[in-house]
Amino acid sequence: MNLLHSLPPARNEEDFTDILARPGLRIERIVSHGQVTPPDAPYDQSHEEWVLLLAGAARLWLEDRGEVALEPGDSLLIPAHVRHRVIYTQADPPTIWLAVHLEG
Amino acid sequence: MNLLHSLPPARNEEDFTDILARPGLRIERIVSHGQVTPPDAPYDQSHEEWVLLLAGAARLWLEDRGEVALEPGDSLLIPAHVRHRVIYTQADPPTIWLAVHLEG
Repeated sequence: MNLLHSLPPARNEEDFTDILARPGLRIERIVSHGQVTPPDAPYDQSHEEWVLLLAGAARLWLEDRGEVALEPGDSLLIPAHVRHRVIYTQADPPTIWLAVHLEG
Repeated sequence: MNLLHSLPPARNEEDFTDILARPGLRIERIVSHGQVTPPDAPYDQSHEEWVLLLAGAARLWLEDRGEVALEPGDSLLIPAHVRHRVIYTQADPPTIWLAVHLEG
């Protein structure tokens, strides 16, 4: 599967596709069409997550760093239990993320 | 670090940069300026490797699949002990790979 070309239609929800799963590791593609994280429901994950923006544009908020703008090629390590929210994603063309979940 | 913009100058050798290392996992950026694997020295790794082409163009040869052409967004899982060679990389602009080594 080409991660940039095999895109779902725009919907209300983000699109999550597992690319590879192994014990302690999951590689996921996320396609966002303008969706953001609700302000009252930040992510609070028990594992590290490394993200790489593949296309589009995004801004994240992390409780330890504040706002971070991402363009294609930018990567970011989100430590475990650092609350974070997606506060902007480019809708069209969509925003495409690679997420590596370090669940080990 | 932006994986697409922070590029080394073209050299004789490929450029390997560790992005993230954890027990059993290593995420690496590889920048190729036309380099290929010597025909008499294929890679033969004891671990799985997942690769994603971020920019440029490449062709791989794998002993179980033959030739595979990669364009940006294409990903490939290289099983452990499957011998493989890079047989083409675009030189200019350079070819940029993300490699996830599953060493666990």
